[in-house]
Amino acid sequence: MTQRIYNFSAGPAVLPVEVLEEARENLLSLGNTGIGIMEHSHRGKAYLAVHEETESLCRELAGIPSDFHVLFLQGGASLQFSMVPMNLLAPGTTADYLVTGAWSQKAVIEARRCGNVRVACSSEDRNFCYIPRQCTFSPKPAYVHFTSNNTIFGTEFAGEPDIPAGAPLVCDASSDIFSRPLEIYKYGLIYAGAQKNLGPSGVTLVVIRKDLVDGAPRDLGTMLQYRTYAEDHSLYNTPPTFGIYIMGLVFKWIKKRGGLAGIARSNRDKAGKLYAYLDSFRWFRATADRDSRSMMNVTFVTGDAALDDKFIAAAKKAGLDGLKGHRSVGGMRASLYNAFPPEGVDALINVMRDFESRES
Amino acid sequence: MTQRIYNFSAGPAVLPVEVLEEARENLLSLGNTGIGIMEHSHRGKAYLAVHEETESLCRELAGIPSDFHVLFLQGGASLQFSMVPMNLLAPGTTADYLVTGAWSQKAVIEARRCGNVRVACSSEDRNFCYIPRQCTFSPKPAYVHFTSNNTIFGTEFAGEPDIPAGAPLVCDASSDIFSRPLEIYKYGLIYAGAQKNLGPSGVTLVVIRKDLVDGAPRDLGTMLQYRTYAEDHSLYNTPPTFGIYIMGLVFKWIKKRGGLAGIARSNRDKAGKLYAYLDSFRWFRATADRDSRSMMNVTFVTGDAALDDKFIAAAKKAGLDGLKGHRSVGGMRASLYNAFPPEGVDALINVMRDFESRES
Repeated sequence: MTQRIYNFSAGPAVLPVEVLEEARENLLSLGNTGIGIMEHSHRGKAYLAVHEETESLCRELAGIPSDFHVLFLQGGASLQFSMVPMNLLAPGTTADYLVTGAWSQKAVIEARRCGNVRVACSSEDRNFCYIPRQCTFSPKPAYVHFTSNNTIFGTEFAGEPDIPAGAPLVCDASSDIFSRPLEIYKYGLIYAGAQKNLGPSGVTLVVIRKDLVDGAPRDLGTMLQYRTYAEDHSLYNTPPTFGIYIMGLVFKWIKKRGGLAGIARSNRDKAGKLYAYLDSFRWFRATADRDSRSMMNVTFVTGDAALDDKFIAAAKKAGLDGLKGHRSVGGMRASLYNAFPPEGVDALINVMRDFESRES
Repeated sequence: MTQRIYNFSAGPAVLPVEVLEEARENLLSLGNTGIGIMEHSHRGKAYLAVHEETESLCRELAGIPSDFHVLFLQGGASLQFSMVPMNLLAPGTTADYLVTGAWSQKAVIEARRCGNVRVACSSEDRNFCYIPRQCTFSPKPAYVHFTSNNTIFGTEFAGEPDIPAGAPLVCDASSDIFSRPLEIYKYGLIYAGAQKNLGPSGVTLVVIRKDLVDGAPRDLGTMLQYRTYAEDHSLYNTPPTFGIYIMGLVFKWIKKRGGLAGIARSNRDKAGKLYAYLDSFRWFRATADRDSRSMMNVTFVTGDAALDDKFIAAAKKAGLDGLKGHRSVGGMRASLYNAFPPEGVDALINVMRDFESRES
């Protein structure tokens, strides 16, 4: 078999080898059922056991109590940008958005199609290289929306923002969900496309407080109401069964690594080491402000686009793939999601060190 | 490895063994990339080649010309029940629906949330056991919607319905797409959840005439406009990459079997044999009218619910799974999608024959 390389992709991203190996064993027959995991009816016992186990592991890992629904949707965070305001932004109310990057901006655009939106803060003035400390909220926001990690700009909220009492906090956690312990009681709704920390693309995890589901309008398209998924245990129609299965395997893998606390330690170690080297190198520097640095996506530049490209090519040659940064920032981006192995960080640091000494 | 059994599930359903074997080989490394198929960035060369090949095989198999878009969406047919009227049912116009089962009924409910709907015909009077021959259309319908195959009731349109000239024909082909040659120029829009004939659940194939995309409103949520997928080649946001990959493998498998014409012959042989036996047995009878029988889902009963259950148990013991019919019809349902092997039909007939002689 071809040797695996270090995959720094921002998503879809690296998955744990053990997860892939277990999936491989079950493609033609899930356990001893004689039917592959993708081929099982979503109404049959074998798949329902997978579905329930995935939800129950999700609740266990993140400490999600029974007054929250755990839902499996489709359409990615981009569809949530619409579903959140369709369900939670009642006429005459205003939703407050913290704008910290391209994804929050897109969320604002979709919300404005549905109702009133206030931008409570923005870090656009410095190309989103920081997390704003000051927000100006509406008197009584319908909800407050933020993007906990900004994949493109390499910034991350260190904790939840302070918001007006009583306002539900809504979070797009696509790129840092389950990378650290979750204080779920601070939230009204968390959503995340699976393809960074949880599994393959094509599944969206939604954790939502039950009262928010109950209060949402009933005249939306059936598939656009959280109620539909909540009432039918995400089985109103055929869910993305294979993606939910993989998500369950990833949850088991996280559990074996000490749960979210264990994963958080490992993530801090990986990113911390890379940032420490970045701060010590002469040629490379991190683009995000020090107090806003992401543990998931480390963005850095040499300051010279041609040299960046040269470095990316050298890294690729050494078996380090997916390091090219997003065009809005340029340079490099090392995505170090949960499943990214610590040895990959060491390999990157070595390539950087070699590059500096060779090019000096 | 556990031996595979005959899987008569109505969907998610059996996939070709060769497809599963190829997917298994590429889970940890797609070709020699060193990165598994689920882990590749949707913006990277390796995945883009998969994406383009899947689209191009789709066009080749079905003879889809350049004035149609081939799109990959999420949310299943159920989301299409809303997206179709949101995009195509302009205020003041009426859409006509042919109601031939539970899925058409759901499509009508969603369309009524958006605008005027006329039920042009219905076979509800006899529990949807036939395809109506007479429809009463609006003078100028915005579009005419039908469900080409009714998974639950075991009926299928032998060909496209005759509709008023100029009206776009919209088809939910979830359970018989690519089971026979497609006369695409008769359609405005065809959609299908992948999980019956095309791949795993979580991908929806949409083939839509370009002028219908261009004429749709621009104030819908971005992910609810066909335009979004058309303009960005289904890559506006992260698509369900693994599902699209599997769909491409299924397309290759169909191509090797003589394309849609070859597959259609095989499907007629499989279902034809089973219907012939059903017509000759004393204890079993098909539930659908003879001229409305589905080549995909063969529904049949003994006429005695307890005996049905006894038969289903006997079949299960013989390694035939998923034969229990939907509760709205009762009895049995043998789903014989493209990938269902002909030997499975022989096995079913043998079990039926044994059952008759043993229980007589």
